[in-house]
Amino acid sequence: MIAEIVSVGTELLMGQIADTNAQHLGKVLPELGISHHNRQTVGDNYRRVVEALKLALSRSDVVFTIGGLGPTEDDLTRDAIAEALDSPLQLVPDYAEALRRMFAARNIPWVETQNRQAMRPECAELIDNPNGSAPGLLCVKAEKALIALPGPKGEFIPMVNGPVREWLVRKATGQVIHSRILRICGMGESVVEEAVRDLIHGTNPSVAPYAKPGEVHLRITALAPTMAEADALLDPVQEQIKEALGWHLFCVDDTPLEAACLRELGGRNSTLAVAESVTGGGLGSRITAVAGASKSFLGGFITYTPEAKVTVLGVPREVLEKHGPVSSECAKAMADGARRALGADYALSLTGNAGPTPDVDGKPVGLVYVALAGPDGTEVEEFKFRSRREEVRERSQQAALTLLYRKLVCA
Amino acid sequence: MIAEIVSVGTELLMGQIADTNAQHLGKVLPELGISHHNRQTVGDNYRRVVEALKLALSRSDVVFTIGGLGPTEDDLTRDAIAEALDSPLQLVPDYAEALRRMFAARNIPWVETQNRQAMRPECAELIDNPNGSAPGLLCVKAEKALIALPGPKGEFIPMVNGPVREWLVRKATGQVIHSRILRICGMGESVVEEAVRDLIHGTNPSVAPYAKPGEVHLRITALAPTMAEADALLDPVQEQIKEALGWHLFCVDDTPLEAACLRELGGRNSTLAVAESVTGGGLGSRITAVAGASKSFLGGFITYTPEAKVTVLGVPREVLEKHGPVSSECAKAMADGARRALGADYALSLTGNAGPTPDVDGKPVGLVYVALAGPDGTEVEEFKFRSRREEVRERSQQAALTLLYRKLVCA
Repeated sequence: MIAEIVSVGTELLMGQIADTNAQHLGKVLPELGISHHNRQTVGDNYRRVVEALKLALSRSDVVFTIGGLGPTEDDLTRDAIAEALDSPLQLVPDYAEALRRMFAARNIPWVETQNRQAMRPECAELIDNPNGSAPGLLCVKAEKALIALPGPKGEFIPMVNGPVREWLVRKATGQVIHSRILRICGMGESVVEEAVRDLIHGTNPSVAPYAKPGEVHLRITALAPTMAEADALLDPVQEQIKEALGWHLFCVDDTPLEAACLRELGGRNSTLAVAESVTGGGLGSRITAVAGASKSFLGGFITYTPEAKVTVLGVPREVLEKHGPVSSECAKAMADGARRALGADYALSLTGNAGPTPDVDGKPVGLVYVALAGPDGTEVEEFKFRSRREEVRERSQQAALTLLYRKLVCA
Repeated sequence: MIAEIVSVGTELLMGQIADTNAQHLGKVLPELGISHHNRQTVGDNYRRVVEALKLALSRSDVVFTIGGLGPTEDDLTRDAIAEALDSPLQLVPDYAEALRRMFAARNIPWVETQNRQAMRPECAELIDNPNGSAPGLLCVKAEKALIALPGPKGEFIPMVNGPVREWLVRKATGQVIHSRILRICGMGESVVEEAVRDLIHGTNPSVAPYAKPGEVHLRITALAPTMAEADALLDPVQEQIKEALGWHLFCVDDTPLEAACLRELGGRNSTLAVAESVTGGGLGSRITAVAGASKSFLGGFITYTPEAKVTVLGVPREVLEKHGPVSSECAKAMADGARRALGADYALSLTGNAGPTPDVDGKPVGLVYVALAGPDGTEVEEFKFRSRREEVRERSQQAALTLLYRKLVCA
């Protein structure tokens, strides 16, 4: 079964938003053993959406559209599908009625154009959308399927992960492509490649590295008649990689490093606090993005000015005067202060200069100190990142989490 | 002149990386008055890359490829271009020699496959790549241009912003497409549309709305012989929208809401602190993502547990016992505590339940309180977001910044 994604929206072409929906669906398809070879992105233009759909239907078995299902005039996908499939639109009276009730319940004035969302091509079923007003469409005609999905992320993701995934699993047969992502921290891409060089030349399973800021992922992929057989191919390769990389391989699949840290903290009934300068709250935000973080994460301090470091964290004024806020000494005092203030077992601190210009003391852009205070004392690491502001902040968080993870699993 | 982007890479199709290169180029093209209507994404498969290029050349004047120019076997773009343009590859001896020297200077062993990077279709010129070993290609044949760009971001962006941009400016003649993004906060998409309904039906300038969590953008776009004439078309439309939407229109173009708040704070020499529970540091991180935030932003507190709210911010225990941590009363006490602790003019606080499950007191998922403490007292707003955890956190930050922005500009 070959699939193809057609993303609709001038804002995507013009780069105003990233096409994270297509990215998500692109990850889901191979998990289900569905190949896809092409993706198209097309603006809000009726003629061109129709052409894109016809091209996709000519070479693929399942076509997904993303976006353009709303009630406004530039929402053209529904009409384009009707033409591409030669399946005229008709009103679904029950859904129109449900929409009317939904609007009344929320005290939103009803306008007739909302009815567009209750239209479907003759050959289509509606896909329920509990997170918005435009339903998805599942059109099946002449051995082809066309699945129309809404553009807003909060509607798109649950629809893909729920009913669409279910339908595809029922439909897909034959070979399964199964991938695992091995996530590696504290090791550069070239070192990882060197360590697993022999495996990278294999074909089934295939092993492919790619780098993210401060992290390397190895995707291992197997082709087999069943998931169990694919797993049987993947297991020994994963084991070999684990042996080669040790603690650096912190998880298989989607667990981000912050979740791996929380898992380790939880297993020890230990608690964590943070003190952030250069990252301004980003580390706390990353940690608390994990549901259930409150079991181990107590909180933290954003001490963006030197004065806040003194008054809130008790960093000695001498430290700031002698070494400046971007210093090993200040990082240590920040971590100690945060650990004390919240009574935590561990505290991470970050101070540095993310740029774009050298700081008042002349500390260069990209210089970052990360400290970890714990029951056995406090350690500090120095980093010199050669990146833009945003990436310096991201890599600093990653460095802090790597320091904590290593401490927890190697202790 | 119509352009088209062909992104090459299985890792893009499979969603392992976001196509931020195409996004960047997608922003650059309209700035130069170049339309583009379609984008294709294709895996590392020779046949399919050739087909994608032929399709693009059949309907567009300038075709860009992104990726697949490296020395390895899955770098197929160069060969595919040679076939699509019917322009055989030939070695550029000078460049092969330069590559050899580059490798020697870096002590990297030379392998013959590196020579692939010194090959070009007969009709092509090399585009210098000071940040990597694979040059870009500028192919001109039969009134069509095909520009091949390397995939690594650090090579791609400088090549686009430098030589490619220069070439396009020289080439592009006639009409210019000029867009502005008007950003609107504190107002839903349908209310915005209703307020500017007449303008949305215009064609030049065109007005197109799209919604982001907690924010609405209106893109206004004009076609004209010159940038100045395009501006002259856009100015009155922008003025009408400004009149219709008042303070809700917080910026034109790329200033995010946090930067608009910092600008307003800076203009008043006022300072800001934050106290975050539900967002765990995300608001501080957003604010400090703006270079120069330290002029107004002092810092903040991540009080993720009830105990931290008491010890760090001085939230009275009675408030927590009587109303719980997710309450208007707690939000107010948090904002007051943060303002006091850092001696700030303003302090924002956020407390709520981002899910996925109701909190210990039974407060529902999506219930969030945002408070703003300032010289005139403290106000609290209640929100009930119907979204997933990540979006609840994002919308909460947006709500807090909206509250602050309104206070600053409407005071």
